[in-house]
Amino acid sequence: MATVINQELTRVDGGVTAARGFQAAGLHCGIKAARPDLALVVSDTLAAAAGVFTTNVVKAAPVLVSMEAIQSGAAQAVLVNSGNANACTGAQGLADAREMAALTAQALGIAAEFVLLASTGVIGIPLPMAAVRAGIPQLPARLSPDGTPAHEAILTTDAFAKTAAVRLSLKGAPVTIGGMAKGAGMIHPQMATTLCVITTDAAVPAPLLRRALRQAADQTFNCISVDGDTSTNDTIFVLANGRAGHAPLAEGDPELDAFAAALTEVAGDLARMVVRDGEGATKLITVTVRGARSAADAKRAVHAVMTSPLVKTAIYGGEPNWGRILAAVGRSGARFHPERAAITIAGVQVVSAGMGVPASMPAAAEAMKEPAYEIVVGLGEGDAAATGWTCDLNEAYVKINAGYLT
Amino acid sequence: MATVINQELTRVDGGVTAARGFQAAGLHCGIKAARPDLALVVSDTLAAAAGVFTTNVVKAAPVLVSMEAIQSGAAQAVLVNSGNANACTGAQGLADAREMAALTAQALGIAAEFVLLASTGVIGIPLPMAAVRAGIPQLPARLSPDGTPAHEAILTTDAFAKTAAVRLSLKGAPVTIGGMAKGAGMIHPQMATTLCVITTDAAVPAPLLRRALRQAADQTFNCISVDGDTSTNDTIFVLANGRAGHAPLAEGDPELDAFAAALTEVAGDLARMVVRDGEGATKLITVTVRGARSAADAKRAVHAVMTSPLVKTAIYGGEPNWGRILAAVGRSGARFHPERAAITIAGVQVVSAGMGVPASMPAAAEAMKEPAYEIVVGLGEGDAAATGWTCDLNEAYVKINAGYLT
Repeated sequence: MATVINQELTRVDGGVTAARGFQAAGLHCGIKAARPDLALVVSDTLAAAAGVFTTNVVKAAPVLVSMEAIQSGAAQAVLVNSGNANACTGAQGLADAREMAALTAQALGIAAEFVLLASTGVIGIPLPMAAVRAGIPQLPARLSPDGTPAHEAILTTDAFAKTAAVRLSLKGAPVTIGGMAKGAGMIHPQMATTLCVITTDAAVPAPLLRRALRQAADQTFNCISVDGDTSTNDTIFVLANGRAGHAPLAEGDPELDAFAAALTEVAGDLARMVVRDGEGATKLITVTVRGARSAADAKRAVHAVMTSPLVKTAIYGGEPNWGRILAAVGRSGARFHPERAAITIAGVQVVSAGMGVPASMPAAAEAMKEPAYEIVVGLGEGDAAATGWTCDLNEAYVKINAGYLT
Repeated sequence: MATVINQELTRVDGGVTAARGFQAAGLHCGIKAARPDLALVVSDTLAAAAGVFTTNVVKAAPVLVSMEAIQSGAAQAVLVNSGNANACTGAQGLADAREMAALTAQALGIAAEFVLLASTGVIGIPLPMAAVRAGIPQLPARLSPDGTPAHEAILTTDAFAKTAAVRLSLKGAPVTIGGMAKGAGMIHPQMATTLCVITTDAAVPAPLLRRALRQAADQTFNCISVDGDTSTNDTIFVLANGRAGHAPLAEGDPELDAFAAALTEVAGDLARMVVRDGEGATKLITVTVRGARSAADAKRAVHAVMTSPLVKTAIYGGEPNWGRILAAVGRSGARFHPERAAITIAGVQVVSAGMGVPASMPAAAEAMKEPAYEIVVGLGEGDAAATGWTCDLNEAYVKINAGYLT
């Protein structure tokens, strides 16, 4: 199935193996009780690579190892395990992560420095290395252009696998960018991680790939919020193996923007799936702030609205509580004059010139029954805007995270 | 009933009218359907006055009027209404607030500039001024040294009235500081406000009173968190009428510290009552971070822990999920080395040198059954510390704030 997004971009199937020269595998090695828990993505050839990692001071061992490895700007394989985050595991955790990279390299016949790692699952428990050691050697024989086993093996409490891919033309060649992600909007005890692996057959030198990934992450994974907690393991990788055959993109190429936009599209699809996949989450809400004095102000305001428990419970309850939205923007640090503010909820204007529009309340409440809608705050101060995605806060979140369903 | 806190400080009854020369009144004027909704606190003589107001850019009309009035450093009366916040009400709201001050001044025979205002309740609905106009003139005749009617009239969804008072000796004279507050830990739709009125018969010039109030607020009301949302109406007033008869405190007096400490004690008692009074809140948690490099780092870390939905749901579930606490500190911006971190929950050490202490999990889970306990995070970086108070996050919060109980 292919959907044309615009003249330049077409959505296609295939996820992390949609691009030429990428294969993947997934299996159950025994970190989890029964479900798949080990995934491998491999490029036929050495690829340019870039990564974005958690900003948390507390970084899991695989994050530390991968941050080091990716400095070369080249990688050929990504090994992901679910069921154990290998975080807060000290020197043993670091040794375990390095051994995982070495075992993967050995199984593939490549150098360990070209293996990237990501882990997700419980914190503070040593990895069951016997299971990992038994599992890794079985992966190469299972590599195939079907990404499904890998998509499944990286999940924790996710209700569904998350994949996306787009096709575009770069310098006359058809190029594909695809990826897989894990992360449930409303997250399990000690399993708060978002992981994302993106692959492309475009030819993009590592420094430009790094910049494009940062841009894409800033507009997608850095703009979603479920509960404001940042994991010890959050990771996004992108590998570009150049198999599309076009002349490599270079600084100043107009095609760089098209590539970055397509990468943002894939990352955005995956990020929004993470928000939508909350156990119990009933709404996918786009929060946009316009008319801010600066991009920083717009981002601050978006962040305050999309992380406010009062706003998120009102969304769950279907109540057009614009006072909570305005109050959240008011405490965000964004500079504005309340008497100029306007708010629309799901297309219905509920605040004009800083005051409520009582007549529109019934229409707003009705529109809030939709599973997905947008909240737009206009500040009337300038030209800057920002957008983010969030979900509602409801009893299921409390139940799951209080742990009494485990 | 009087409880000796330490050699210098004794807890006494009487709340906002415990200090000499203060009287209060409360009544139902019709802003709410049936419960008391109008309160007045009056000093026999003009008093030094200071205030702390919401930092929200969106400020209610009574906040704007009181911020102006308090610049003189003098006040004689505080009028508080519940049931309507007079916020996001535009020019009409400002006119209504000014009229409330004028009516109160007229009823008391004082100047309107010496009347302070605070409001709490729904946002965005004009005040029912007919009810207010009928109510205010009835207040002076009801003034009495019994603060109870006032304590009751400022409440919204609070489950209980909040009062506190202490006695100490300043320059040889017995001095009393007392106060009342409103604010339910888990807050009602559009009724998120914390209000606090403190009175004292100490003689403290306005600039010193202002400084002492800021110190007290920084260590109490600015250290509590229920859901991270800051109201449009948050206000703390302190009035000092000098009726204790001692020589006024002056810059450099050693007694200034004793006064500030006593004021902090009263504000702290009231602030902790606000946290404990959540509809459905089952735990009062003290969060302390020690060994930080700076006070700012310690505060950042405390704030991240006490506002983390993952930490707060784990507290509700009674699970010693130290990974969530460490991850919250890790994303707080505080500088530290995870491998030096230590965490105790309710006196049980669950993290040492950045890693879990598995053997202590059962004891920690058992201790977390207590209704109130402390979480202490040691960073091992320096000498700075900070403390805050929070409560658990549970289904009742969602139910109440989703609005389907209204």
